[in-house]
Amino acid sequence: MKIAVYPGSFDPVTKGHLDIIERASKLFDHVIVTVMFNQSKSPMFSPDERMDLLKKTTVHLPNVSVDKHMGLLIDYLKVKEARILVKGLRAISDFESEFQMASVNQKLCKEIETVFIMTRTEYMYLSSSIVKEVASFDGDISDFVTEEVKDAIFQKIGG
Amino acid sequence: MKIAVYPGSFDPVTKGHLDIIERASKLFDHVIVTVMFNQSKSPMFSPDERMDLLKKTTVHLPNVSVDKHMGLLIDYLKVKEARILVKGLRAISDFESEFQMASVNQKLCKEIETVFIMTRTEYMYLSSSIVKEVASFDGDISDFVTEEVKDAIFQKIGG
Amino acid sequence: MKIAVYPGSFDPVTKGHLDIIERASKLFDHVIVTVMFNQSKSPMFSPDERMDLLKKTTVHLPNVSVDKHMGLLIDYLKVKEARILVKGLRAISDFESEFQMASVNQKLCKEIETVFIMTRTEYMYLSSSIVKEVASFDGDISDFVTEEVKDAIFQKIGG
Amino acid sequence: MKIAVYPGSFDPVTKGHLDIIERASKLFDHVIVTVMFNQSKSPMFSPDERMDLLKKTTVHLPNVSVDKHMGLLIDYLKVKEARILVKGLRAISDFESEFQMASVNQKLCKEIETVFIMTRTEYMYLSSSIVKEVASFDGDISDFVTEEVKDAIFQKIGG
Amino acid sequence: MKIAVYPGSFDPVTKGHLDIIERASKLFDHVIVTVMFNQSKSPMFSPDERMDLLKKTTVHLPNVSVDKHMGLLIDYLKVKEARILVKGLRAISDFESEFQMASVNQKLCKEIETVFIMTRTEYMYLSSSIVKEVASFDGDISDFVTEEVKDAIFQKIGG
Amino acid sequence: MKIAVYPGSFDPVTKGHLDIIERASKLFDHVIVTVMFNQSKSPMFSPDERMDLLKKTTVHLPNVSVDKHMGLLIDYLKVKEARILVKGLRAISDFESEFQMASVNQKLCKEIETVFIMTRTEYMYLSSSIVKEVASFDGDISDFVTEEVKDAIFQKIGG
Repeated sequence: MKIAVYPGSFDPVTKGHLDIIERASKLFDHVIVTVMFNQSKSPMFSPDERMDLLKKTTVHLPNVSVDKHMGLLIDYLKVKEARILVKGLRAISDFESEFQMASVNQKLCKEIETVFIMTRTEYMYLSSSIVKEVASFDGDISDFVTEEVKDAIFQKIGG
Repeated sequence: MKIAVYPGSFDPVTKGHLDIIERASKLFDHVIVTVMFNQSKSPMFSPDERMDLLKKTTVHLPNVSVDKHMGLLIDYLKVKEARILVKGLRAISDFESEFQMASVNQKLCKEIETVFIMTRTEYMYLSSSIVKEVASFDGDISDFVTEEVKDAIFQKIGG
Repeated sequence: MKIAVYPGSFDPVTKGHLDIIERASKLFDHVIVTVMFNQSKSPMFSPDERMDLLKKTTVHLPNVSVDKHMGLLIDYLKVKEARILVKGLRAISDFESEFQMASVNQKLCKEIETVFIMTRTEYMYLSSSIVKEVASFDGDISDFVTEEVKDAIFQKIGG
Repeated sequence: MKIAVYPGSFDPVTKGHLDIIERASKLFDHVIVTVMFNQSKSPMFSPDERMDLLKKTTVHLPNVSVDKHMGLLIDYLKVKEARILVKGLRAISDFESEFQMASVNQKLCKEIETVFIMTRTEYMYLSSSIVKEVASFDGDISDFVTEEVKDAIFQKIGG
Repeated sequence: MKIAVYPGSFDPVTKGHLDIIERASKLFDHVIVTVMFNQSKSPMFSPDERMDLLKKTTVHLPNVSVDKHMGLLIDYLKVKEARILVKGLRAISDFESEFQMASVNQKLCKEIETVFIMTRTEYMYLSSSIVKEVASFDGDISDFVTEEVKDAIFQKIGG
Repeated sequence: MKIAVYPGSFDPVTKGHLDIIERASKLFDHVIVTVMFNQSKSPMFSPDERMDLLKKTTVHLPNVSVDKHMGLLIDYLKVKEARILVKGLRAISDFESEFQMASVNQKLCKEIETVFIMTRTEYMYLSSSIVKEVASFDGDISDFVTEEVKDAIFQKIGG
């Protein structure tokens, strides 16, 4: 069985992320969407809140599960017996940093293969941080995230 | 009447910014240079000081005015009844982030059009932050900013 | 009056070109779409056929006219008393070559200003040559060109 | 069963191509390496010769087969009942043109998914054309192609 | 005598840095590797510790010396009577920022020439920060730094 | 003695090339500017004419000589006992192809080191082909080439 891991901070999940998840779910037998976190950053949502929003967003995809991890990604893949990493590519700057990570991961563990899926052009310039920035000025974010995520963001900001 | 807004942090205005302002003033009937600010960053100059330096720098351009704004850019354009955004392009990395912002702005408001002007090659690698860095080590910044801005920077650092 | 020239080979005009023309027509008082041609290339459509397809495609835009030119672009702008060049930007590789042309044109004639409009993300990877390639293998090009252009292409290929 | 197609001109297959084929063979149940050709280009090897070199190079990979095709790629995928396209990414310029092709293919057929694998850094700047250029000046190409391909190239040049 | 300065933060020196140092030492009569530091950043190693690791790493190179500097780089070059700056290029994003610095340095002092050496492909995506990140999760960094640097990093983290 | 080779097609030499030659002449003891040619291309100037224009353009540089070569560049360097290749970098697209060539050359001969010098920003978008294109439409090329080269170009076109 081909198990793939799609890691990210997902703070919170956007429609661009969802697009990658849906497409990865057709490519591999099982896809684990994994919230990566560390203690130094100050996110909008806690790892558990992010997992919760991801679960609601991917409820229609039977071969997708949601998890979280703090630490080295390749250790996580070994524990999960997954050998495939899925990454979304949006732009040139993504390309460079993802290439760096893929090269380092391959040095650390030769069995792991990174597979890239290009984000659909309409979500090409979408990121969690730009969604949060637009929301912070009370802008309309309906095109960028699902209803549930939109509500969760405005609850965080408003409350 | 074609009104264009040229937004930026202008902390402080450089000769590269001035080049874009002069060229935009020939393209459109009126150009508003708008100091964008938010409360989290720690700038060298206050929004009012930045406006003051911009006014002194653009005093020779009759169809250019200076303003400031905190909040979502498209709300500002609606208030000003301006439909044109002017942005300067210097390098590939500018291109990517500006493309992202232009795409997001177009999703938020279809009437707004972003127009890009390429910075003259001699100012191509000039930025406010590099000017401040050079000045902080007491380097010569005469080629990068006007006399008034140069004096203002060294007054900030020295005093 | 602000007159802008949007030059290109337009062999043939795509929906991506049309998007740029529509947006430029809102920015400037008059836009001349100019078919640039030279004798060495072997195009699919003659300059007059390309003008004809452009005219049909832009018939709804009152301040847009269509023309053709062989020779140096800046000489053409002088004759037309136009000082504004409009170019569409799609990708990083466009950015580089357009930057080169804009720099050279500015050296040749300081009065001329090049203005860049970014292609809408959905047309971002569209080009006349890819349309012709897909059509040559009998693929569906309805999303890429108007009905009239589609018919003209298949008439060229089929006949 | 997940069937993937890895298309290319393979004129001839390099160690960089082989690296992508080996890695794709671990990701999917079956990989078809397809020599794409058209009548206008003047290749070094005929489509059948290219297939022959590919077969010799991939003889150790049981779930890899070799084929050829002239025409639209998506028609080929439909015939083969394959929904996955594999492409190797080497550099920024690859990224742009591959992104264009992936976008066009997705417009033409929504079911087809393009998956990108990044070439190992040591093969990152390797291409069939650079191998042929070095060989044409009698340079050593042992690091770039297998022994069989090397012999085939020098037979073409020498004979 | 051609004296070249290779500046950097070297926090700590990687095998990629060492590769550039070794190659620069063959190009010029003397190479000074200079630890640049400022008071605002929070590095892993102090400037003196970084110099110490650099000295141990370059002990086999007779025409290489190690130094440190806080302040404007061009002032340092004048004091050292060096007119050549050596920089390593890894990726597109390096290219842009290095180009900016080289342009600014040339404006500040016309005598200084910046020379770029491209990092070997196998070290192309290696950086001090990625080494520290991998080490912080207890990953294996033997391929990225020398034994001494590896020990020094784990001593910092562990102790 | 450090001997460097600066190869190129130089069809013809531009002020951008001259800038690189002057700067390389300060970095190394001797610089050989080498006209690379092959039989398939159709240049404006013959290899001997290109050498002649280079000699006239570099007559003020005592440690610069001019030569021509057809074949593999590394063989030429071995004959000349030169271990340093000088290349000019103008833009991102140069960066990629030059990186490819440098990687291939290093695989073919480990002793050879490629050194990159960035073109001055004012010549950043200058190329021999754009000069010839502007000249073919009778445009002014005085800013791009020396007087002698300008005369030689118009003699070719006119006569």
